[in-house]
Amino acid sequence: MKQKIIDPWGSSLLEDYEKIIKDFGLEIFDAGSFPNPNRLMRRNVVFAGRDMKIISDAIRHRKKYYVLSGIMPSNEKIHFGTKMVVENIKYFQEHGAQTYILVADLEAASARGVSLEEARKRALEFHIPAYIALGLDIKKTTFYFQSENKEVMNHAYEFAKKITLNEFQAIYGSADPGKIMAAMAQVADILYPQFKERKPGIIPVGIDQDPHMRLTRDIVRRLKEKKFFLPSSLYHKYTPSLDGDMKMSKSKPESCIELPEDIKSVKRKIKNALSGGRDTLDEHRKLGAIIEKDMVFELLKQHLVEDDGELNKIYKEYKSGRMTSGELKEIACQKMEEFMDNLVKGIEQARKHIGSLNFVKFK
Amino acid sequence: MKQKIIDPWGSSLLEDYEKIIKDFGLEIFDAGSFPNPNRLMRRNVVFAGRDMKIISDAIRHRKKYYVLSGIMPSNEKIHFGTKMVVENIKYFQEHGAQTYILVADLEAASARGVSLEEARKRALEFHIPAYIALGLDIKKTTFYFQSENKEVMNHAYEFAKKITLNEFQAIYGSADPGKIMAAMAQVADILYPQFKERKPGIIPVGIDQDPHMRLTRDIVRRLKEKKFFLPSSLYHKYTPSLDGDMKMSKSKPESCIELPEDIKSVKRKIKNALSGGRDTLDEHRKLGAIIEKDMVFELLKQHLVEDDGELNKIYKEYKSGRMTSGELKEIACQKMEEFMDNLVKGIEQARKHIGSLNFVKFK
Repeated sequence: MKQKIIDPWGSSLLEDYEKIIKDFGLEIFDAGSFPNPNRLMRRNVVFAGRDMKIISDAIRHRKKYYVLSGIMPSNEKIHFGTKMVVENIKYFQEHGAQTYILVADLEAASARGVSLEEARKRALEFHIPAYIALGLDIKKTTFYFQSENKEVMNHAYEFAKKITLNEFQAIYGSADPGKIMAAMAQVADILYPQFKERKPGIIPVGIDQDPHMRLTRDIVRRLKEKKFFLPSSLYHKYTPSLDGDMKMSKSKPESCIELPEDIKSVKRKIKNALSGGRDTLDEHRKLGAIIEKDMVFELLKQHLVEDDGELNKIYKEYKSGRMTSGELKEIACQKMEEFMDNLVKGIEQARKHIGSLNFVKFK
Repeated sequence: MKQKIIDPWGSSLLEDYEKIIKDFGLEIFDAGSFPNPNRLMRRNVVFAGRDMKIISDAIRHRKKYYVLSGIMPSNEKIHFGTKMVVENIKYFQEHGAQTYILVADLEAASARGVSLEEARKRALEFHIPAYIALGLDIKKTTFYFQSENKEVMNHAYEFAKKITLNEFQAIYGSADPGKIMAAMAQVADILYPQFKERKPGIIPVGIDQDPHMRLTRDIVRRLKEKKFFLPSSLYHKYTPSLDGDMKMSKSKPESCIELPEDIKSVKRKIKNALSGGRDTLDEHRKLGAIIEKDMVFELLKQHLVEDDGELNKIYKEYKSGRMTSGELKEIACQKMEEFMDNLVKGIEQARKHIGSLNFVKFK
């Protein structure tokens, strides 16, 4: 019997994620199989994955495994998706994983045309400090730049022989040379912690990154020797666009919050966000809010309220109509202000520690 | 007025090369514009190129320029095409060029599936010694392995952004990921000597390697800053298959001579080669040989007779019918035996010098 996705606090986008799970043959995430699941896991924002049991087993039996993620320094800001990745990395880091963060500067160059110098600068001055501010423990983290990791590049070339253009296009939909080179580097990154020693690893990503996982797993299966464990993955839902679309996107700036962003502009966007409140106050008091279509509640659920009891209380008040959408937005604005303040200060603070990062030393 | 290809000693394949020049928009090679042209240049085995004037000018005015070529260690032997490349490198090396030889181990891995370790072993134990035996001056040559050259790999990623899949396919006819990655590494190799300092360079290659030149030149033209000189190229004709086809190929082993190869088997192949001799001796004495279709004369011309006077004498004797095709083949067998002997001994001798090669030291 197929387990259903349980989303205790609702979301109108549920069907989209059920379709994704079916289309891509993903496993449904079960928070119960991981010890002390984090907020995203408990609330089914983390909703699916691949080969998750090998990771939960590794945690329970204290076996070696790794968690890995990449920083894409072509962007000048991060977004809520990045925040979720960092939170999931933090979870595994606190549960025994060897942690690797790479700066995808070759990908920034080959797929986005950002120079290696510019990418390095952005990563050191903004992205890594932001990751630290969001909870990454740098003492337990190994960092590297793709462009300095000869082993990763050499493996990228070897792996390229294992895939045809048609197969690549079937996975990615398109296949420009820059995109192919970036993808092959990603495959090598994902497997890098296994170059010296075969071990399980988990890659927490947004669902739109699944093609990289499929490509990597296809290639691992084709390698003659059983050199690598098939890497596991963990997918979180998107933070929806404030206008109700599935994914926040810079292409609609008034419905997108960047990290960090000026709090005045953030508050304006929240006040204009798609609400589950009724047309009149009378109606709202009588019928209660339609929580599934409320993007502000989704923000509180995904990012702004840590305590389940507190979220549950807000849910009940709003659902019953006792709390208005204006009041809900006010809560969100307050919490967002606190969060942005901490983030900005945290980044500032973290910049001081850039000198003490554990960058891989290459020969 | 378009200059015609002059091939003083004829070849039935001339039309094919005229078509190539037209199709690919090449310049016709003019031996007169280069000082002391080598055997291949004098005899129009070198037949075309791109931007050759910038190189002949550099030679005449003693300006900095470079010559570069790659060793493809996926092959276990070399062939006459490689010999011609080395002879042309030697020419430029003796005429003031900075000389670069790279081992295309990433290409061997990504396009042919040969491991980096195996590629390295073959290059050091066979290919480089063979290049030395054929005349490369290692004291004046800089060597590197692609897999150790981070700068080359990083540039390969940056260059990939400058070309679309359609453009790549238009140049190469196909575009598998391994092939794309190999080609992008080649582009970076070709430009490597210009990374630190912009200067002209010439790449002597077989005409089948022209796609790499076109790709490189297309990409250089698209780079915003004028970072690189458009690289020049020099094309030699193929050594024809002993059965008269345009190109010797291992797919027809009885018509193909590898370097080195057991002399008994080579002599057998020469004796069976397509000849320009007439059906009967009487006829031959009367009409003379049809030199244009004689593959053994082509071998003598391209590879075995250094002195123009000597070649001319053989040409006249054979053309007039005074020399039989049997006698011509006997000359070729003798000369080939001497050449193979020297090559084998030269490779043996050169292996002793592998330790003193100028490999680029990478940080």
